[in-house]
Amino acid sequence: MIMNAEIINIGDELLAGHTVNTNATWMSKELKNIGIKVIRHIVIADEKESIIMALDQVARGTNYIFITGGLGPTEDDRTKAVITSYFGGSLEFSEEAYKWVEEFFAKRGRVLSERNKGQALIPNNAERIINKMGTASGMIFRKNEKTFFVMPGVPYEMHNMMKESILPELAKYSKVITSELQINTFGLPESEIADRIMDVMPDIERDLSIGYYPSVRGITIRLAGNDKFKVKKAQEKIQDLLGNSVYSLEGESIAEIVVNLCKEKNLIVSVAESCTGGSIADMITNVPGSSAVFKEGYIVYGNEAKTKLLGVDPHILKEQGAVSIETVEAMVKGLKNKTGADIAIGVSGIAGPDGASPGKPLGLVYLAVAYKERIHLQKINFDRGRIKNKEYAARAALNRVRLALIDDE
Amino acid sequence: MIMNAEIINIGDELLAGHTVNTNATWMSKELKNIGIKVIRHIVIADEKESIIMALDQVARGTNYIFITGGLGPTEDDRTKAVITSYFGGSLEFSEEAYKWVEEFFAKRGRVLSERNKGQALIPNNAERIINKMGTASGMIFRKNEKTFFVMPGVPYEMHNMMKESILPELAKYSKVITSELQINTFGLPESEIADRIMDVMPDIERDLSIGYYPSVRGITIRLAGNDKFKVKKAQEKIQDLLGNSVYSLEGESIAEIVVNLCKEKNLIVSVAESCTGGSIADMITNVPGSSAVFKEGYIVYGNEAKTKLLGVDPHILKEQGAVSIETVEAMVKGLKNKTGADIAIGVSGIAGPDGASPGKPLGLVYLAVAYKERIHLQKINFDRGRIKNKEYAARAALNRVRLALIDDE
Repeated sequence: MIMNAEIINIGDELLAGHTVNTNATWMSKELKNIGIKVIRHIVIADEKESIIMALDQVARGTNYIFITGGLGPTEDDRTKAVITSYFGGSLEFSEEAYKWVEEFFAKRGRVLSERNKGQALIPNNAERIINKMGTASGMIFRKNEKTFFVMPGVPYEMHNMMKESILPELAKYSKVITSELQINTFGLPESEIADRIMDVMPDIERDLSIGYYPSVRGITIRLAGNDKFKVKKAQEKIQDLLGNSVYSLEGESIAEIVVNLCKEKNLIVSVAESCTGGSIADMITNVPGSSAVFKEGYIVYGNEAKTKLLGVDPHILKEQGAVSIETVEAMVKGLKNKTGADIAIGVSGIAGPDGASPGKPLGLVYLAVAYKERIHLQKINFDRGRIKNKEYAARAALNRVRLALIDDE
Repeated sequence: MIMNAEIINIGDELLAGHTVNTNATWMSKELKNIGIKVIRHIVIADEKESIIMALDQVARGTNYIFITGGLGPTEDDRTKAVITSYFGGSLEFSEEAYKWVEEFFAKRGRVLSERNKGQALIPNNAERIINKMGTASGMIFRKNEKTFFVMPGVPYEMHNMMKESILPELAKYSKVITSELQINTFGLPESEIADRIMDVMPDIERDLSIGYYPSVRGITIRLAGNDKFKVKKAQEKIQDLLGNSVYSLEGESIAEIVVNLCKEKNLIVSVAESCTGGSIADMITNVPGSSAVFKEGYIVYGNEAKTKLLGVDPHILKEQGAVSIETVEAMVKGLKNKTGADIAIGVSGIAGPDGASPGKPLGLVYLAVAYKERIHLQKINFDRGRIKNKEYAARAALNRVRLALIDDE
């Protein structure tokens, strides 16, 4: 039996464009992993009519409805009362829930305020879901063979309820029917990837679905099908076709791949960041356990810092400019000397919105990676605004390290 | 006249949980700014039946429907054909669109592939929207007083179409009817903020709507109402009530506020980051023009780096540990000496998932800010996983700088 789900996210903040709906994304992924297919997301306002209309309009074939939002202690949350009365019940004060809220506050050294006492009002027609991370209980309503799970909109509270109470229970009844694999690439454009794949695998569409997902992280290719051996075969074939532009088959970040390669080879990596301003180090240190391979890094944002900390010759900065091959080359040489790191990364560029000059447009970045006797150099032109430019340059630098380390083998 | 809009995002990647729906958020915000109210977001699969059902189900009172996704060059995009035929037209080869695609590729030094030629097939029943950032044209269909805007799902392509073609046109016909203001706070819990506000302003709900939006960036309070003077008055009153936990009234990041304060006071800031691993520097350098106040920074991830680069006494590291008040104090002293910066930030903590010990739990962070003769010290306990822990510590450190600079006045 295929199990279908719909996700209803209630919140004015979502419709007003203040908050990105990461809840729908997270839930969709978790549900897919246990074989439940999400067929629709709906976002509506925290008001009675919209909530009732959404509950009325749930499609016939849907087994599970996941509702988030509107259970908090503040005045703008109306969901609990509306949903309880939709299913014919009413809210009652629960001694048990009250104790729970009181203890929750006590543990954090806070006093239970009048406002938070409302969290102890519980529907008399629902099963309660314990909230370990906050004070608003979750609720389960059942009607006409459909199950409605109602949870707070605060992501980590919802995650905890899903992981501890809901997903393990649903997994018992579901059966995973599709097999899905991915291929993460960096450096090739979408149409070239599609061309290469389609030239060699004209029949891929018959058995498998294939999707291309471009972002600043590169292009991710996703394969899905009912025959897990065919999906695996296709993944291997595509990996061969795309060569070393494939950095992962499991969705790890390039930073994770680089940290793991460094661990395997027992190498220390260091960074000298100008335009990326700390984002390479930030990506590396987002990886748990990265402290084994990353010990120190330098953000050399000004020209003086490049000279003072890394010994970059002021003549190079004056004549070639801070954004030049010569500068990044001098940065990594200086960094290697100073730190003794096995791998030195240097990046300098024009993140924007100011700083462009003739021949040096916004988004121009030079990067250098020193490893063993070689310095790998790369020029990038990528202009999608300051923050994306920084991120792309950081990923490109980490990708260059990856390529240097796998060439080595 | 109130103008209502619905957003339909088409994409298997959204329902599969691979991609966060930032398009709906961005569009909602831009539309609200010109007085168009988004009343629903719907996410559906890139398949004929779902697309037709969504088009059929658009609510009666909706004037504008914004559709994104499914216009790319790859095989998984079916939207264009389905929507064109839904409105009674068919796709025709357009010489003009073909030239556009060809030029687009030529400018980037790429050859037009067979796959990309499909981008020159254009509906014969729609107005075309030029895509300056990519090869897939946008389309405008009109039916029964409703206007349907169809755009690619790639965010920067859609943004460009909206900003250059659609929003300026719609703004002519719309009238902004609500006034909205915000108050950005850091450091106080949601229920305490709500208590303080409600105690003093019991009648705020009558004229205004008020919403509380908690995240790792702090709590944002949003006020909306039809009388812009009342909204402004309420904003001022709340700002007074919450004192210096309010860091902005305009939605700037704490890093923007800090960079601007440093510019005003002509101060240089530097960082010594352990557990935050570069994220403070990254946040600072995300601010355009931050190079005026930020010249150099150190990521001292290992103990040796703390000693070598900042002169932290190895005895402190051994006896108090790297995660201690004494260590961050020594870090900022060393940083100030080394850089001559006016403000020195030092952070050390346990980001997790490993590294906890008795008395030093995951999420424990010490931070120090040296400014003038004082060193401001702070201890944080915040454990929501490695990446959020890093981010929160970085924001708390910047907030501490902000407080030190405003105390100064």
